[in-house]
Amino acid sequence: MSKGVTKQSEDYSRWYTDVVQKAELADYSPVKGCMVIRPYGYSIWEGLQSTLDRMFKETGHVNAYFPLFIPQSFMEKEAEHVEGFAPETAVVTHGGGKKLEEPLVVRPTSETIIWSMYKKWIGSYRDLPLLINQWANVVRWEMRTRLFLRTTEFLWQEGHTAHATAQEAEEEALRMLEVYRTMAEDYMAIPVLTGRKSDQEKFAGAVHTYAIEAMMGDKKALQCGTSHNLGQNFARAFDVQFQNENNELEYVYATSWGVSTRLVGALIMAHGDDQGLVLPPRLAPYQTVIVPIWRNDEQQTMVLETAEQLKKQLLDAGVRVYLDSRDTVTPGFKFNDWEMKGVPLRMEIGPRDIKDNQVMMARRLTGKKDAVSLDAVAGQVPALLEDIQQQMFDRALKFREENTLQTTDAGELRDYINSDSGFVLAPWSGEEETENQIKEETKATIRCIPFDGPEPGDNLKDILSGKPAKHWAVFAKAY
Amino acid sequence: MSKGVTKQSEDYSRWYTDVVQKAELADYSPVKGCMVIRPYGYSIWEGLQSTLDRMFKETGHVNAYFPLFIPQSFMEKEAEHVEGFAPETAVVTHGGGKKLEEPLVVRPTSETIIWSMYKKWIGSYRDLPLLINQWANVVRWEMRTRLFLRTTEFLWQEGHTAHATAQEAEEEALRMLEVYRTMAEDYMAIPVLTGRKSDQEKFAGAVHTYAIEAMMGDKKALQCGTSHNLGQNFARAFDVQFQNENNELEYVYATSWGVSTRLVGALIMAHGDDQGLVLPPRLAPYQTVIVPIWRNDEQQTMVLETAEQLKKQLLDAGVRVYLDSRDTVTPGFKFNDWEMKGVPLRMEIGPRDIKDNQVMMARRLTGKKDAVSLDAVAGQVPALLEDIQQQMFDRALKFREENTLQTTDAGELRDYINSDSGFVLAPWSGEEETENQIKEETKATIRCIPFDGPEPGDNLKDILSGKPAKHWAVFAKAY
Repeated sequence: MSKGVTKQSEDYSRWYTDVVQKAELADYSPVKGCMVIRPYGYSIWEGLQSTLDRMFKETGHVNAYFPLFIPQSFMEKEAEHVEGFAPETAVVTHGGGKKLEEPLVVRPTSETIIWSMYKKWIGSYRDLPLLINQWANVVRWEMRTRLFLRTTEFLWQEGHTAHATAQEAEEEALRMLEVYRTMAEDYMAIPVLTGRKSDQEKFAGAVHTYAIEAMMGDKKALQCGTSHNLGQNFARAFDVQFQNENNELEYVYATSWGVSTRLVGALIMAHGDDQGLVLPPRLAPYQTVIVPIWRNDEQQTMVLETAEQLKKQLLDAGVRVYLDSRDTVTPGFKFNDWEMKGVPLRMEIGPRDIKDNQVMMARRLTGKKDAVSLDAVAGQVPALLEDIQQQMFDRALKFREENTLQTTDAGELRDYINSDSGFVLAPWSGEEETENQIKEETKATIRCIPFDGPEPGDNLKDILSGKPAKHWAVFAKAY
Repeated sequence: MSKGVTKQSEDYSRWYTDVVQKAELADYSPVKGCMVIRPYGYSIWEGLQSTLDRMFKETGHVNAYFPLFIPQSFMEKEAEHVEGFAPETAVVTHGGGKKLEEPLVVRPTSETIIWSMYKKWIGSYRDLPLLINQWANVVRWEMRTRLFLRTTEFLWQEGHTAHATAQEAEEEALRMLEVYRTMAEDYMAIPVLTGRKSDQEKFAGAVHTYAIEAMMGDKKALQCGTSHNLGQNFARAFDVQFQNENNELEYVYATSWGVSTRLVGALIMAHGDDQGLVLPPRLAPYQTVIVPIWRNDEQQTMVLETAEQLKKQLLDAGVRVYLDSRDTVTPGFKFNDWEMKGVPLRMEIGPRDIKDNQVMMARRLTGKKDAVSLDAVAGQVPALLEDIQQQMFDRALKFREENTLQTTDAGELRDYINSDSGFVLAPWSGEEETENQIKEETKATIRCIPFDGPEPGDNLKDILSGKPAKHWAVFAKAY
């Protein structure tokens, strides 16, 4: 399965698809736009899932499950929402052999069905906050799909919270953005910009949308997660009022937030190279693979015995380890296979190594190979994995910084974007006019108004219109 | 939320629905037949899920994810399968605003879509066995639905394995049935009959179906899980052949096996009583709840401080504990609430208890209340929880044994079933004739031919037809 992939420099898009398939992360299915997540890809998703689930629970959230189907009329209750989602829904018209009275939409997101339930559950301020998350599949009828990045069906989590005050909702939206930032930076080793979306790019039905945005290996942006302050929009649409502490009826304040299997795509594109996937140790399904080497049955027995001992030592040290004892393929095949699959450390162990009381340890990130004492290696691996984790983050951060331009000059912006050179930080009036014109000229969109961007000075002008600039915004081509 | 439920003796079916709603396990949704799994119900499902997932991985299985949608033509490739499932499917006819060329079925089960992929992945005996599980939602258009027990959409896991020999497939089907038996008996504290289904009751497309069957509190049977030996049926339907070790092409052998959110219904009905849910300690989201009692602010501070210490001690002892420090409801309300939710142990702690260095500990299963030393309690709880777990299993086993009749007399069978007295073990010829007639007369079906049932002697006759009996079969009314 490891015949190598198209080079990034040759065709980045083909490189990506090659890696997804050769690393056995996902496959095309017979249903247009839907993918099959293969076991190795799914195990990466399980790592993301369990990490996020723990963080959600630590911040007071609980999981629940709402129906896959949404009555079509529900979608229409929030004006912006229906406009945003109706064109891309899949619709069930028949059930049990009969035509349905009202068609059912396969959920593209669950605000409407969830708020119809919140109406039943929320009566008083004592019922608030309601902090619910759902792990689910959703369907958006996409015209152009790409494995993990944009598929008709995808897996995600969607948090839906209800609050007594506007301030609490705003705090929640920002709290969950911070959870996503932590996930991206501390686990995925991907530095992200956190910031607010422009009105044009925000979620259909939101007051504000916040996002984490990352730079991929081809210098394009990938939106990795969003968190929405929905204000009272859905509470009004579904008439969800609560009695506040002063005995007055008030509409409930809401947030929603989500990340999806797209994150697997982010991992591939942020860290991958011409040998395939490079996984950050904290999320790698296997952090270390042991490849035993032998020439005859006698050697096989001895080498496998030592390899099993090493495996046990690594497991005891808390390392996720896989001993690849297949006898149907060569060691060289296994090297390529696990490189393709991005395992951070590979340990080669043969008869001579055993005699010398050592293993050869190869690092996926740098290709560096060292002989390490068999007695010491298990003890060293945990710290080494943490080093690699940090190196991956540092490398990705340096890459983003080297490929970001801050400018007030429209020509520079155009040249930078059109030459696929990366992100541009430029002053913006806040008006759609500039946003639209830049999009038309360069295909770049405003990715976000970053929280930690520079302050716009008094005399700063919009990069195109010359009107007073309200923000420094990040423009980039995006997935 | 805890105003009590209908008594079991009054109306078992209403009792069930009351418990589901008052314990906040699930709620009706606006979509016919679909339920909302509320956070407390979902946390029980998470316990079932994580326990099963661990057991699947320990037996060599990996998780993957296949599309929600199945092209209608795929469903039709296996003759029995389409006949079994076509009448109860939901069908997507429109996507992205357009009518689809081929309608898509929302998966009622995934054999067909999965075997269409296995055709791509399996070429040689080296690719076998393939041991994949999927956690997913499925949809079956049901006319009469009941929360957890039978809903249009439900959550489940479905294992789909591929093997090189008929024997391996048979072993796998039985191995997974044993996993289900372990889950039911050792975790859910529900004794189950393991056995084979009659041809009439088997899965549409299977060679054999094995099942675990449990007795509920109303003496009816609930099928809790099934494991199918599919033989080469789906391999033939999707033309999945492999090169065996002798270089010959052969069709692949298959199994599939699944359990669903129905298991939550099993927990409710196997153990619940007129005070609500009774949860087995190994699966209870909270094994112990602490209810602090105070009359004034000063007491509140002191009691909460001690309660927090106790909570920490219990957590350190590995106990899942919840400190209910709400000040908007009374202790009495909390007692009822947690009884309804089936928490195995309740600890009450007030100013006098603290003075006496004790807590009052109440057991949900028996109602027994003891004063226990504050210093010793955390140390005692883990063993006590294991005792309760065993008591629950023993009680349920005794109940089933007391409500099972072994007979060769058709009149006795009819009387026993028609008076809702429980299970009947009776000799069966293996012919549909008997099965159908008993079903017509009593509504009882053959639940299984139990593995550990008595051997049919040479002269044993079918309970109705008088033909030679091949088996002792279990007849019962079922959910």
